[in-house]
Amino acid sequence: MSRLRFRISMSLDGYVAGPNQSVENPLGVGGMRVHEWVFPLEIFRRTHGLEGGVANESTPVVEEWLESVGATVMGRNMFGGHPGPWKAEQPWNGWWGDDPPFHHPVFVLTHYPREPLVMKGGTTFTFVTDGIEAALAAARRAAGGKDVGLGGGASAARQYLAAGLVDQMDISLAPVLLGSGERLFDGVGDDLHGLALVRTVVAPGVVHLRLARS
Amino acid sequence: MSRLRFRISMSLDGYVAGPNQSVENPLGVGGMRVHEWVFPLEIFRRTHGLEGGVANESTPVVEEWLESVGATVMGRNMFGGHPGPWKAEQPWNGWWGDDPPFHHPVFVLTHYPREPLVMKGGTTFTFVTDGIEAALAAARRAAGGKDVGLGGGASAARQYLAAGLVDQMDISLAPVLLGSGERLFDGVGDDLHGLALVRTVVAPGVVHLRLARS
Repeated sequence: MSRLRFRISMSLDGYVAGPNQSVENPLGVGGMRVHEWVFPLEIFRRTHGLEGGVANESTPVVEEWLESVGATVMGRNMFGGHPGPWKAEQPWNGWWGDDPPFHHPVFVLTHYPREPLVMKGGTTFTFVTDGIEAALAAARRAAGGKDVGLGGGASAARQYLAAGLVDQMDISLAPVLLGSGERLFDGVGDDLHGLALVRTVVAPGVVHLRLARS
Repeated sequence: MSRLRFRISMSLDGYVAGPNQSVENPLGVGGMRVHEWVFPLEIFRRTHGLEGGVANESTPVVEEWLESVGATVMGRNMFGGHPGPWKAEQPWNGWWGDDPPFHHPVFVLTHYPREPLVMKGGTTFTFVTDGIEAALAAARRAAGGKDVGLGGGASAARQYLAAGLVDQMDISLAPVLLGSGERLFDGVGDDLHGLALVRTVVAPGVVHLRLARS
């Protein structure tokens, strides 16, 4: 069975983005601080077209993220927030560029129908208007036996968590406070639906917690 | 310099107590779940007058809590919440019993003056009405060169954290969700005042994070 996997960086006080998120600043004010552990890594720099960088205990954790994911589900904010219906005369193709880093089918949760968007490098964005379960089912069919990645944002993650549809969750806990912003678990309730802590990796500036069904 | 040390168990979604806290249920509904990792431990059972129990990676962490603390500061809820002025005709001596487990001077933050309360076993409760810094200064004088423990509850902890007065914070992170209740970091802001992650101990059902001034 193809699993639904999810990863996110979170502050010690539970925030995954700072306040005042916008198209210009999708992580919100200060939100970059929960990601600071990843930027020095050679594997991060290489996959973003940069040279140099270091390897540490986070390297194999980041490598695993990229493995065995055959399709991605994401919220419309993660695709590139749009305020309403898609406009045929002014198409908005998200903020991932012409050659998005997915290289596999991506299913975008939205209230507004739109034809699929075929990008370079094997990424196709398919827009799903009939809910999170339909999007997950479509992604599983498209994943070719591999896992489905839940690409975020936090709102989409909360919906899948609350519905008990997440099979594995990697939280990269950054020892910082954001103080305000968007919390991962707001409104999710008190039930992890069988997800239990199965692995902890300690690395410079971060603790990687893996919760999975046992 | 005597350090102000603080330890607390917290859920993955940042709660240190569940909703609907009361004198009968000081941890709130479901709040016990963040403490479940400690109950099986032999060291916990022994210090609570019980036999049996196990040792695991949490054992040395719990042992350290008890070491080198010469005085304790706590909020009035931790002493045993009282709704208003102390009543001489109906004294309330907290919920720690006749022989409290501190065995050293304890300074209770309160708005209502009261004479010190001398208990069995070396514990004296002194009631401090002139604020957190005065209580800390008194505790440091009383600690005899040892550290000062911040006994909680969450409200007192938040005040010391926001003021930048905490020198070491041990968070025992339980991989559960409470969904609602009292959050440790609400209103603390986005500044840890130099506290950085210096140690992580992974144990059954819990990850112990230590933040301290570097």
